[in-house]
Amino acid sequence: MATIRDVAKKAGVSVATVSRALNDKGYVHEDTRKLINKAIQELNYKPNEVARSLYKKKSRLIGLLLPDIRNPFFPELARGVEDTMQEHGFRLIIGNADENPAKELDYIHTFKQNNVIGLISATNQTETSYYESLGFPVVFLDRTSRQHPSVYADGLAGGKMAAQEIVKRGSKRITLLKGPMELKTAQDRFKGAIDELCHSNVNFNVMTTASFTFDDAEKTAQELFDKFPETDGVIAGNDLGAAAILHEALRRGISIPDELQIIGYDDIPLSSLLFPPLSTIRQPAYDMGKEAAKLLIAIINNELIEQKNIQLPVTFIDRQTTRKVEDNG
Amino acid sequence: MATIRDVAKKAGVSVATVSRALNDKGYVHEDTRKLINKAIQELNYKPNEVARSLYKKKSRLIGLLLPDIRNPFFPELARGVEDTMQEHGFRLIIGNADENPAKELDYIHTFKQNNVIGLISATNQTETSYYESLGFPVVFLDRTSRQHPSVYADGLAGGKMAAQEIVKRGSKRITLLKGPMELKTAQDRFKGAIDELCHSNVNFNVMTTASFTFDDAEKTAQELFDKFPETDGVIAGNDLGAAAILHEALRRGISIPDELQIIGYDDIPLSSLLFPPLSTIRQPAYDMGKEAAKLLIAIINNELIEQKNIQLPVTFIDRQTTRKVEDNG
Repeated sequence: MATIRDVAKKAGVSVATVSRALNDKGYVHEDTRKLINKAIQELNYKPNEVARSLYKKKSRLIGLLLPDIRNPFFPELARGVEDTMQEHGFRLIIGNADENPAKELDYIHTFKQNNVIGLISATNQTETSYYESLGFPVVFLDRTSRQHPSVYADGLAGGKMAAQEIVKRGSKRITLLKGPMELKTAQDRFKGAIDELCHSNVNFNVMTTASFTFDDAEKTAQELFDKFPETDGVIAGNDLGAAAILHEALRRGISIPDELQIIGYDDIPLSSLLFPPLSTIRQPAYDMGKEAAKLLIAIINNELIEQKNIQLPVTFIDRQTTRKVEDNG
Repeated sequence: MATIRDVAKKAGVSVATVSRALNDKGYVHEDTRKLINKAIQELNYKPNEVARSLYKKKSRLIGLLLPDIRNPFFPELARGVEDTMQEHGFRLIIGNADENPAKELDYIHTFKQNNVIGLISATNQTETSYYESLGFPVVFLDRTSRQHPSVYADGLAGGKMAAQEIVKRGSKRITLLKGPMELKTAQDRFKGAIDELCHSNVNFNVMTTASFTFDDAEKTAQELFDKFPETDGVIAGNDLGAAAILHEALRRGISIPDELQIIGYDDIPLSSLLFPPLSTIRQPAYDMGKEAAKLLIAIINNELIEQKNIQLPVTFIDRQTTRKVEDNG
């Protein structure tokens, strides 16, 4: 790999001159600059970005912090962020906090110490001091925050929509799963659903779930049918949870959607591949990722930001774990 | 955040002395060292790792390059790598190459320019020049390479096992899906399966698939039933593909496993949640990740490596998309 010395030699100038040209500092004659650029191209020289970022205090590196890469919702978010960052010439490195605050803090340090110029975080500690005085902008994704800009989907409307659709389709004894309460997005969708259920003429149970992870989903599914065997409609906290419930119901010989309706949340790619395909509330994960990336780029470029908190709409995806409206009992 | 200047001031020494103590270079009196350490602790000072890595030419940063984070197999691999790296005090940043050689190359540059001290790569270009003269060790994961150490599962045995199990359970007209041929691991499992089928008294078709991605899986599934409607057994290239085929078969009213048996490959977490749960060849993804991390750490620490290519065994997971052996027709 070519070094700055090779470039200087080829251009017939000093290393200091090449450095001035590269960093746009100090005077470099236009002809000299041309010689240097020619040498850079011929040698395919790539300046060491760490050294340059120390000098110029600026890299093109962005950090993305995900809470759990095993939940397929987050890779979808990441793809939206990635594609947009790449279009704009930024580079993205990803950290997986694994729903663990210590890992989250450790990644924030790693990103900081490697001179990222911005961070998109979809983890759980949005209100902690972790995100204060980092020296670079932070945008929260699929999360809200009092201090920082954020991009998220409308959880209140999503929860309400899930409850409306399942009630409209005839469930009378509904179990509502309540996701982790430290997440405002989970709170919102729970609040939206429970408001709607309270105003409907149905019985319902609330069951808490410790997390949105895969490991907890299977336990929760078994518990649900043991505790609430009379349930004829489930509003799940996310699609992973809904998939586990669907699986457990079929294993117990419960007919879907005739005896039990299930509505998920997220619309992960595999939801359409389940059998029966999962009805769910779709969060536009890829678009959320894109919007968060665009917002962060605008902040980095010191553009005027009109809207610091961007809420995207959700939609009901009517597949086959819910009945048709006219079929309801 | 505290700087090296704050530490020097608090300890009553010069910045140069703190720097010598931090980097173990030159003489620092034991008492002075104690004062400095006390100041570091009281101020919760964290040395800037980029500056240190430039100085010491050593960071604790490891890069992990995945081909497609949307395929749940790779997040499992990543978790194994992550947990092991964390136990050993290394930090991991992840790049998603998205099965795109240009992105792969770009990530390699990003990692290099941010001074990673090692790279684990699970992407597709193992034989290209991308991985030459990087200046840090590379271990391939779920991939093999002529020049570099690698950790992978036994594809030849896995392919053979899939064919044996489906034949033993009575399929007579088998469709074998052939994954991307640039991957030695995909070649191996294809070769293992076809050898076994050639030695069996069954008819079979081979159908090529462009990639292991989700988008291709659904197309392939539809094509399969259009082209080979007489198929009574499918050996899929991976679980994502198998899930798509299972879904399409049920949509067409084909009874699983009575009329059609399906065997996947990987055993991703969602395979047990499908209905019927997917029979598959299990690759020990998490353990593969752990082994790759251990191998890379050993290389970084200049330990004597006895085995540079580690092959892990695969197992048949007998779920419900295959019949019981005694049931076969």
